[in-house]
Amino acid sequence: MNSSLPASAHNHWVITLVCADQPGIVHAVSGAIVSAHGNITESQQFSSADTGRFFIRLQVESPTDRATLQAALAPVIARYDMHSTIDIVGRPLRTLVLASTAGHCVNDLLFRQRAGQLAVDIPLVLSNHGTLRDLVGFYSVPFESLPITDAASKTAFESRVIEAVDEHDIELVVLARYMQILSPELCARLEGRAINIHHSFLPGFKGANPYRQAHARGVKLIGATAHFVTSDLDEGPIIEQNVVRVDHSRSANELVAIGQDEESRTLSQAVKWFAENRVLQDGVRTIIFK
Amino acid sequence: MNSSLPASAHNHWVITLVCADQPGIVHAVSGAIVSAHGNITESQQFSSADTGRFFIRLQVESPTDRATLQAALAPVIARYDMHSTIDIVGRPLRTLVLASTAGHCVNDLLFRQRAGQLAVDIPLVLSNHGTLRDLVGFYSVPFESLPITDAASKTAFESRVIEAVDEHDIELVVLARYMQILSPELCARLEGRAINIHHSFLPGFKGANPYRQAHARGVKLIGATAHFVTSDLDEGPIIEQNVVRVDHSRSANELVAIGQDEESRTLSQAVKWFAENRVLQDGVRTIIFK
Amino acid sequence: MNSSLPASAHNHWVITLVCADQPGIVHAVSGAIVSAHGNITESQQFSSADTGRFFIRLQVESPTDRATLQAALAPVIARYDMHSTIDIVGRPLRTLVLASTAGHCVNDLLFRQRAGQLAVDIPLVLSNHGTLRDLVGFYSVPFESLPITDAASKTAFESRVIEAVDEHDIELVVLARYMQILSPELCARLEGRAINIHHSFLPGFKGANPYRQAHARGVKLIGATAHFVTSDLDEGPIIEQNVVRVDHSRSANELVAIGQDEESRTLSQAVKWFAENRVLQDGVRTIIFK
Amino acid sequence: MNSSLPASAHNHWVITLVCADQPGIVHAVSGAIVSAHGNITESQQFSSADTGRFFIRLQVESPTDRATLQAALAPVIARYDMHSTIDIVGRPLRTLVLASTAGHCVNDLLFRQRAGQLAVDIPLVLSNHGTLRDLVGFYSVPFESLPITDAASKTAFESRVIEAVDEHDIELVVLARYMQILSPELCARLEGRAINIHHSFLPGFKGANPYRQAHARGVKLIGATAHFVTSDLDEGPIIEQNVVRVDHSRSANELVAIGQDEESRTLSQAVKWFAENRVLQDGVRTIIFK
Repeated sequence: MNSSLPASAHNHWVITLVCADQPGIVHAVSGAIVSAHGNITESQQFSSADTGRFFIRLQVESPTDRATLQAALAPVIARYDMHSTIDIVGRPLRTLVLASTAGHCVNDLLFRQRAGQLAVDIPLVLSNHGTLRDLVGFYSVPFESLPITDAASKTAFESRVIEAVDEHDIELVVLARYMQILSPELCARLEGRAINIHHSFLPGFKGANPYRQAHARGVKLIGATAHFVTSDLDEGPIIEQNVVRVDHSRSANELVAIGQDEESRTLSQAVKWFAENRVLQDGVRTIIFK
Repeated sequence: MNSSLPASAHNHWVITLVCADQPGIVHAVSGAIVSAHGNITESQQFSSADTGRFFIRLQVESPTDRATLQAALAPVIARYDMHSTIDIVGRPLRTLVLASTAGHCVNDLLFRQRAGQLAVDIPLVLSNHGTLRDLVGFYSVPFESLPITDAASKTAFESRVIEAVDEHDIELVVLARYMQILSPELCARLEGRAINIHHSFLPGFKGANPYRQAHARGVKLIGATAHFVTSDLDEGPIIEQNVVRVDHSRSANELVAIGQDEESRTLSQAVKWFAENRVLQDGVRTIIFK
Repeated sequence: MNSSLPASAHNHWVITLVCADQPGIVHAVSGAIVSAHGNITESQQFSSADTGRFFIRLQVESPTDRATLQAALAPVIARYDMHSTIDIVGRPLRTLVLASTAGHCVNDLLFRQRAGQLAVDIPLVLSNHGTLRDLVGFYSVPFESLPITDAASKTAFESRVIEAVDEHDIELVVLARYMQILSPELCARLEGRAINIHHSFLPGFKGANPYRQAHARGVKLIGATAHFVTSDLDEGPIIEQNVVRVDHSRSANELVAIGQDEESRTLSQAVKWFAENRVLQDGVRTIIFK
Repeated sequence: MNSSLPASAHNHWVITLVCADQPGIVHAVSGAIVSAHGNITESQQFSSADTGRFFIRLQVESPTDRATLQAALAPVIARYDMHSTIDIVGRPLRTLVLASTAGHCVNDLLFRQRAGQLAVDIPLVLSNHGTLRDLVGFYSVPFESLPITDAASKTAFESRVIEAVDEHDIELVVLARYMQILSPELCARLEGRAINIHHSFLPGFKGANPYRQAHARGVKLIGATAHFVTSDLDEGPIIEQNVVRVDHSRSANELVAIGQDEESRTLSQAVKWFAENRVLQDGVRTIIFK
């Protein structure tokens, strides 16, 4: 993807490395970077007391190409048995958006993408309804709708998801108020690269129509949580959360409108961090290198 | 309690009225106030679509004494079958504080009381531990400790609570991190006049050591909820909630410290509003006339 | 505008009244409403200690038409020399949007309008650039651009504003990042019905490129202020303010992106409150009846 | 100060290093740490595009004593011409508090210190008034008051400050609502180790009684800024800022009370970060390694 860059260009690389914590890692990594004539411009690390894992995210300016940088790091990655990623800073992430009828999250993502605030390429928005066709079309993004009415059509929809993931070499699937539960198979297949958004309340509410429950209970704060999709519904590792204050005078419908704003900005924030390789997983927790 | 005020003084009254919603209430109430030569300086009202109840809180400047004002309002209160309160703006509320070993909430309440930011009189802090004796003593507030070690000593403690409520004509009981569950009998006796504080998380956690659970789950927001005490543990009507942002680097102990700050300010805020007659109950919801 | 409503419909009215503060106003007003068979569903009032003015906003359900309601209120309005407005709850406000090249505020307004969260009709977006033509067109809102290059073209632009205000019976002019200073004549003409948005910092910065200054100074909070347009540049009565936290790692360009989000939501909030007749002026301050 | 630690103890060190940015620094530093058998448990770095300076803060577990660690780092510090600090994590900072009559900031600092949330030793609170003697005494902290009534008594007060700084080997001077302007000489002497708190508004206000001005102008947000003391009054490098929402109904006195809460928590936060060696200066900006 950087084949068009001249070999002599000063590239800006983002590197993430994860391994068992032990002394000497930073020295080994920074030595490899020095050997590739790189300069570390940003570095964040974290040692998890819970899992004993070490996490580091680096941004490195280096005149080398990817192969050279990779070769320099390879012995370190091998020695420490690291999980690693190397990418170019700012490269747009290939992202598939799933939606249903609500447009607030989709619009927020597409507008930020176009405004240059969100480094994603969105080759397709796939919905189980046709409602958002015009909105998506305005941003010149391809849109498909496939109705889900029964188990067979749901399977067909998910097959199309898998096909689109392969076809477009998708790196992230965003559930932008896609109101169907993913099958366990699809959850497993997309593990660590699918982000969902849902409303959040203090205290939490189970079951249907949570905004109505929140209204009935008189909550003073409503919010949203963006998290990785797992087969354990709404319980995946949390990426970002926001809340906003409400009072007794708000109707359940107003709570919905307020909650949608929080959902939009929370989801876009989570996608932005993910696209910038700032989200790492530590068991059921996330490390966010903001 | 206003016997020392000269009969001719311009008094500042706070009035709350609650009844079934219907046309003409405001006109009837304001007519009664006009007849008592009162001027409405602050007014907030709310009609609950959920319960069909009407709530109004008024502040009224009037040269009359309480008896005259009450006599002017009596026919309106009778006609609409109102629940009513009449009080002097700024009168300190007689408040009993229950505590255990943690000092953050108690210190915050006492400091604000002394700084003139919280209109309460605190004739007693009662604890099941002796830990806070010096802290409370610094503020020249009486302190008693009665250990709770078994059912009998818990009953004795609660008997002392009831006795203190009667002895000091207590209007509000504040559970400032009092770590014992009130008996159903005491809950019932203090209904609508006991406020508790507890930590809050998105999502919520049941069971012991919630800060440790919140840490394990990697929550990004932690907070506190002040609510009325009911026999349904931690589920009473919510008065105030606050949250603060945390990240993956915080230890469970740091979450505790951060959470304590939220608990202190949330509880003090709830007590302040209650002392100013700004908290009304609408079934399981609260109306807060800020 | 409610000519199509059947005479017997239960209408929902919003009434604002402003006059010199004195006893008996609420009683007189509520009496007039009772006489029009109205029921007060929402009421907020404020007595300004600074100016001695009394402000009240009421929502009233009444089976009467506007003329009958107005006739019932007329004697009270006359007796207290009130400034008054009577409107139907939820009636879309006729709104002219002025813009330049930045699309974030315009997009936010148009999206919320279409999503049913903002009760405005926007018959025209007028810009001194053509940049936003497609964005505005997507929402099926008419768009005109008139370049401003010198004093004469600026006068022409403002003449078109005045013409459009008359032609569409405009009630509110929104400066959605319109980057020209309005002439004193236009400011005077639009007084109390034009809202502007600008960035805000702690501390404030004068002069060009404030985000660059804020970056240089290392501010930890950046925000936005929505205010009424006056000839005193950026000093009109404040309607709404928001801030968001930033840190040393943010470039000046990132501060711009973050600030734009705050500008969008702050401006839309201010427009929403204005459209709902919740914004009253008290000298150089605003009363916001949220 | 760690003389009581057994030589074999695993110590936890905090190291800050600042130098001109260039490739290889992290590798050199981490090599030195490896050679001292240290393990990096926390690391944050920042390259300032504005000043070309490189900043790093490390926490390192190492079995060595300070001399050994210092010897290991010495060649790196020399080669890169670094400004460096080495300290033990959690060592209480020797802190002098200056105050006048307002107790909110002093109480907040002392309470947090005693609660174990703030790693400071406070050998003295020095005030130009006697008001806070009892409050400070409750926390068993020495208190002195020296009235300032003219230039001579002000000079005497500042001489006592300098004497106390020397006597107690003071590392940080906190102006906890000390309402006198420091002389340029004292500012220069305490540069980079004195923190002040002041209220903040959007927009800012100059001159006396800013809360009254903020009230008159109808601001919707008030806040506080903690900053380093410089001879340029209230313009030193910003460490932390907070704001809170207010509305038209707040009196100027209520704004004061609300502002005091923000002042307390903002100042305590700034002191905490400073005590943890998280605050570095980059020209007129601060780098905060939270």
